[in-house]
Amino acid sequence: MTAQVPITAGIETGGGAWRFPADRPLPLDSGATLCPLEIAYKTYGTLNATRSNAILVCHALTGDQHLASAHPITGKPGWWDLYVGPGRPLDPERHFIICTNVVGGCMGTTGPASLDPATGEAYGLKFPVITIGDMVRAQAMLIEALGIPTLFAVVGGSMGGMQALQWAADYPEKLFSVVCIGAAARHSAQNIAFHEVGRQAIMADPNWCGGAYLKGGVRPEKGLAVARMAAHITYLSEAALQRKFGRELQRDGLSWGFDADFQVESYLRHQGASFVDRFDANSYLYITRALDYFDLAAQHGGVLAEAFVKARNVKFCVLSFSSDWLYPTIESRDIVRALNGAGCRASFAEIQTDKGHDAFFLEEPLLQQTLSGFMAAQAQARGLA
Amino acid sequence: MTAQVPITAGIETGGGAWRFPADRPLPLDSGATLCPLEIAYKTYGTLNATRSNAILVCHALTGDQHLASAHPITGKPGWWDLYVGPGRPLDPERHFIICTNVVGGCMGTTGPASLDPATGEAYGLKFPVITIGDMVRAQAMLIEALGIPTLFAVVGGSMGGMQALQWAADYPEKLFSVVCIGAAARHSAQNIAFHEVGRQAIMADPNWCGGAYLKGGVRPEKGLAVARMAAHITYLSEAALQRKFGRELQRDGLSWGFDADFQVESYLRHQGASFVDRFDANSYLYITRALDYFDLAAQHGGVLAEAFVKARNVKFCVLSFSSDWLYPTIESRDIVRALNGAGCRASFAEIQTDKGHDAFFLEEPLLQQTLSGFMAAQAQARGLA
Repeated sequence: MTAQVPITAGIETGGGAWRFPADRPLPLDSGATLCPLEIAYKTYGTLNATRSNAILVCHALTGDQHLASAHPITGKPGWWDLYVGPGRPLDPERHFIICTNVVGGCMGTTGPASLDPATGEAYGLKFPVITIGDMVRAQAMLIEALGIPTLFAVVGGSMGGMQALQWAADYPEKLFSVVCIGAAARHSAQNIAFHEVGRQAIMADPNWCGGAYLKGGVRPEKGLAVARMAAHITYLSEAALQRKFGRELQRDGLSWGFDADFQVESYLRHQGASFVDRFDANSYLYITRALDYFDLAAQHGGVLAEAFVKARNVKFCVLSFSSDWLYPTIESRDIVRALNGAGCRASFAEIQTDKGHDAFFLEEPLLQQTLSGFMAAQAQARGLA
Repeated sequence: MTAQVPITAGIETGGGAWRFPADRPLPLDSGATLCPLEIAYKTYGTLNATRSNAILVCHALTGDQHLASAHPITGKPGWWDLYVGPGRPLDPERHFIICTNVVGGCMGTTGPASLDPATGEAYGLKFPVITIGDMVRAQAMLIEALGIPTLFAVVGGSMGGMQALQWAADYPEKLFSVVCIGAAARHSAQNIAFHEVGRQAIMADPNWCGGAYLKGGVRPEKGLAVARMAAHITYLSEAALQRKFGRELQRDGLSWGFDADFQVESYLRHQGASFVDRFDANSYLYITRALDYFDLAAQHGGVLAEAFVKARNVKFCVLSFSSDWLYPTIESRDIVRALNGAGCRASFAEIQTDKGHDAFFLEEPLLQQTLSGFMAAQAQARGLA
């Protein structure tokens, strides 16, 4: 499935890590710069002769570039395997699909665990606070370096959807279409509150060492696991948790102690324990911070429609899930209202499902059909079909 | 406001701590017994000559017996001050109001911080796992010791409502009426999940010391604060958080760091920090466990109505809050359906409010009116009016 056609000399076929030279730093919204910048990415499929079939997929908070191939640490299938593949909405036989690890991440792109050239040690808390805008700016640098003038689509769920909206605001001339799934144009007070709990859990772990844990050869695994557990609850609907676990016990009878008596406890503990094997605690701090700072309207004088006024030639597809309480449908409706206000063409659908926020990467036939339909229509409009 | 009339020789006027003799242990649902048992309680008002005006108020997870008078640690008004007082739904001029600290608590009733007679040290994790049924059994022992044959009402919100339901199941002959506010007849998977996050946060704190922190003179304050922060989010509705805090900043501009930039972060941190001054981490473990174990239907062959078949002479008032997502209205409707199925008389109202679960102790005129109305009607039926 992976492309064997080199795009540009020096790019690893199927992805790799792109290291920008020292004279190409990443300017950040904070005013700082990040240098050197390295972007880890994966590609699937082949860029066509007119360079018109490239799709950038943006990942969510704890995602990475391993979109549709085995994860190098966990060995599990790619996180969007159900949506990327022959006959699927994103099809490497027709599309050239790119996924980059975000700036601040921990899977190869420059982040807080990278070496700070000023000290020769891992950045830790010396890493600059980054934004969704910074993530997108870095992606745009890579897309340009790959020799792709315009993207057929930018597609993302959750934080990936926020990046897709930010692309529309910042680089509308480089986009043909945008798909934003289960996202919001700004983080709500409740969203920020849950992230703050996670950050406090990490920073409460003495192994966090003020962010310098790599130097000491330790990791704040317990704190990171608690952060993941709290967040994980928000990814599932109450109904899905009840359907999957209810009050089912792990064993016959109660333990009358603090072992995991209920299956939902065991499930959450597993989510926490497996997360720490593949994720860096400081990356979790930085990426949650980027999400909390995200407010697309605030970037445009408080008027969300203003973010999209230059994107009138871009076709938008906005999708939400009826049981998503992290980024509920009302948030997607606000986005659509702003797109309409800006004169953009936007399709909107609320997918009826009880799976909650995580529905965007679960088996969800309505999502698959809706996405396939939108991509097919855009392919025709783009002359790809 | 506090009664100055001694009820029974040996009882402190206005409350105190009742220590049961060694031959009166508390039998527990786990099969263990708790001995000695001491129950800390407060009273407001005067028991009338016919001993027919006593109301037991049951407190929530982090509540205590300081219902309507200053908290001895924080100095703040009693947690139900808005609902207890002259002219209020519970009126010390008409009612004799009793509130006990639950078994497992940390405000004077026997709990994990109490001395284990077997070792002479604090119980810690040697304290037996307790249930809502155990809390109620201890309360019934105190009510009997106070010489009160029947309670005019058992009233409670949240975990207090669960205790009120348990009273109806276990001691229907001792009750005239029950008020259950913002509660559920069993903990859902999501309820358990949030509690498990809190417990894991506490147990991840190295100062927890396997539960034996009092011996070392330390306390798992960071872990307990994280637990409180996570739980606190569930006490407020998304709308209330948005209305109170939105994305308002603490200062002009972002810090570009991990200080509390947003007011909601600062609020949560304050909630965590102030909680650890007044609450014991092991009590938090034990009481959340009691809540998770609570399943009134399971105690009665899986049929909730069976819990209430002996309570046909008790009048019930079940109240929920439209924006409560911790124990949503559907849980209260299930209780009412079971009460109806058992042939009990039950009033039900969903209070329209955006304040979420915590509405039960906030200024909520509809709740005040509904409660006052129910109490007045019951007073008339009881011949108190």
